[in-house]
Amino acid sequence: MIMDYAEEALRKHKELRGKIGLELKDQLDSKDKLSTYYTPGVGAVSSYVAEHPEEARDYTWLNNVVAVVSDGTAVLGLGNIGPLGALPVMEGKAMLFKHFAGVDAVPIVLDVHTPDEIVAAVKAIAPSFGGINLEDIAAPICFEVEDRLKAELNIPVFHDDQHGTAIVVLAGLINAMKVTGRNLDDCRIVTVGAGAAGTAIMKLINKYAGKAEILAVDSKGIISTDRTDLNADKQRLLEFTNHGNVSGSLADALQNADIFIGVSKAGLLTADMVRTMAKDPIIFAMANPVPEILPEVAQQAGVAIMATGRSDFPNQVNNALAFPGIFRGALDNKVTKITDDHKLAVAEVIAGLVEEPNPEMIIPSVLDDRLVPEIAKVIV
Amino acid sequence: MIMDYAEEALRKHKELRGKIGLELKDQLDSKDKLSTYYTPGVGAVSSYVAEHPEEARDYTWLNNVVAVVSDGTAVLGLGNIGPLGALPVMEGKAMLFKHFAGVDAVPIVLDVHTPDEIVAAVKAIAPSFGGINLEDIAAPICFEVEDRLKAELNIPVFHDDQHGTAIVVLAGLINAMKVTGRNLDDCRIVTVGAGAAGTAIMKLINKYAGKAEILAVDSKGIISTDRTDLNADKQRLLEFTNHGNVSGSLADALQNADIFIGVSKAGLLTADMVRTMAKDPIIFAMANPVPEILPEVAQQAGVAIMATGRSDFPNQVNNALAFPGIFRGALDNKVTKITDDHKLAVAEVIAGLVEEPNPEMIIPSVLDDRLVPEIAKVIV
Repeated sequence: MIMDYAEEALRKHKELRGKIGLELKDQLDSKDKLSTYYTPGVGAVSSYVAEHPEEARDYTWLNNVVAVVSDGTAVLGLGNIGPLGALPVMEGKAMLFKHFAGVDAVPIVLDVHTPDEIVAAVKAIAPSFGGINLEDIAAPICFEVEDRLKAELNIPVFHDDQHGTAIVVLAGLINAMKVTGRNLDDCRIVTVGAGAAGTAIMKLINKYAGKAEILAVDSKGIISTDRTDLNADKQRLLEFTNHGNVSGSLADALQNADIFIGVSKAGLLTADMVRTMAKDPIIFAMANPVPEILPEVAQQAGVAIMATGRSDFPNQVNNALAFPGIFRGALDNKVTKITDDHKLAVAEVIAGLVEEPNPEMIIPSVLDDRLVPEIAKVIV
Repeated sequence: MIMDYAEEALRKHKELRGKIGLELKDQLDSKDKLSTYYTPGVGAVSSYVAEHPEEARDYTWLNNVVAVVSDGTAVLGLGNIGPLGALPVMEGKAMLFKHFAGVDAVPIVLDVHTPDEIVAAVKAIAPSFGGINLEDIAAPICFEVEDRLKAELNIPVFHDDQHGTAIVVLAGLINAMKVTGRNLDDCRIVTVGAGAAGTAIMKLINKYAGKAEILAVDSKGIISTDRTDLNADKQRLLEFTNHGNVSGSLADALQNADIFIGVSKAGLLTADMVRTMAKDPIIFAMANPVPEILPEVAQQAGVAIMATGRSDFPNQVNNALAFPGIFRGALDNKVTKITDDHKLAVAEVIAGLVEEPNPEMIIPSVLDDRLVPEIAKVIV
């Protein structure tokens, strides 16, 4: 059932020796061109840009270039495999940026791992780029790193593992509400996995539907004030989750829940648990590569709508639905901060591209070529 | 006489909005390719690379990518114009890398300027690159930055303003010796300008011809033990220059000198000074864009061989003769340090490409397509 791309991927990567390269917008095929693009002509451009820094993007590739930055501590489902291990993923991400949105992206893998060091490195190289896409940096460090960089840089900084996922999940939920005749504000939502993606999903849902009842569950159970093992970021989740301050396991949390959102581990959700959820439950099982519950199992247990992270099942939650258009728009419209309102608007745009939502189609295809231009129009 | 490229350069840079972009080695035109180059396939590549870091270059663009790093403190002849001002030059340098040597180069302009900060930033991003080309970083900071990075990284680090210039000057001198029937070890050499380029030129000449008599001159005159204003790097020049410990002006230094090497300011060298030099003097007047003495003036004063930094005069000292082949070779041959012996060998290769050296041709053309393959063969 699950096609294995490992062998083909290893073969192609070795054959091509990496997937990206540098492209020249003009050729250096004459002495005149050398003198125009390099010395002495470039001196006039450098002087002009130094005197008019606000126009730098009009004379350089700043208007179209994004750094894809990772320290390799949370790569795909592989965990902390270091910067070299992360590089193939970052090159792949750069391909997606170029293919879907025409954005030039540069993989930057970091040999430093503390918030101070990551922030210092990214700030140091920031004048080289028109935007910063943070990627595969482990929680909770990713939260501090993004917050500080957003505050200290005047170019867009976006941790895709958090917000790309959150935006697409919210887009799917918006359409799932239409299909099942619900209002998100009236839903009980259980999110399993309180790392980068899970935290961002819960925050964005809370922003969109402040009355929704959210329970956050991690590997130790429901996050509540009774827990003594919570870091500061998990403690902050209690500001808007678990108003009843219940304790217990995932199974306890799921009783009568309308929505399960999993960014955790394969097989965590059983058919028996699904049967204890409210009628017509909605399941987003996004563990990679094997979801928390397989679609056929969930369907037998009565699930109404099912989404996963995989392209071979319906309703793929794929960050590539969001980030290409978001950066395309940020670069074109000189957006310096991707705010929560911006993310909500993007989720609405993505949801709106599905004309007639149904259980098999609450999320548009990543190949829908309306995505980038429509998302890029968002200005809030 | 001097064609002005300023207007054309501003026009073309604005039209193209920068000169470089990202190229994909394959297209993402099917779901299979998405799964091969990104998830899930890339996971196998990342796992493999993490377990076999020595093979990372075979599966990623590390085998072909160089960072062109500047903090914008010594850009062309423009001085300290900052990272944004430096960016057009670094994009131009990236074009040269790609055009001449097929090397993918990424401009990295830094918002930090102390040695500690520059070293920390470059070390942090180093796993992203197969080599580091330092560019337009002011002396004396450039010396410490390069020394520390060379010691602490296991990829080639090369400050082109120092060594690229030094290598091409030495190549020209090797051929100038043939033309004028001299031996460099017997020459008196006066170098004006003791910044990045001047210092590296003197060091490399000393390495090649340890008996040559070298005088270093800066804006205050001859560098001697009598000077009380010398920084540590200039003091170190006295270890191999000015053995007679003479003091005085440039004019004093030039009496009976065989060779003038200028990396200083337009018009610094007068015809009268040239007339006090030894018979058949050799002049490398490399101030940009206007040399220390114009060729027609020097010729009237009896110069035997003249080189400048300009493409519209004979014998252009152009770093682009050296750095593309050096990095091509370093990447292909997994060279981790560009040693002095490596630089000397490259200078010999460049000199050797001029079959019959004569006053109008001691340095090959930058368009000579033997340069990169021949230089890339150098292994020491």
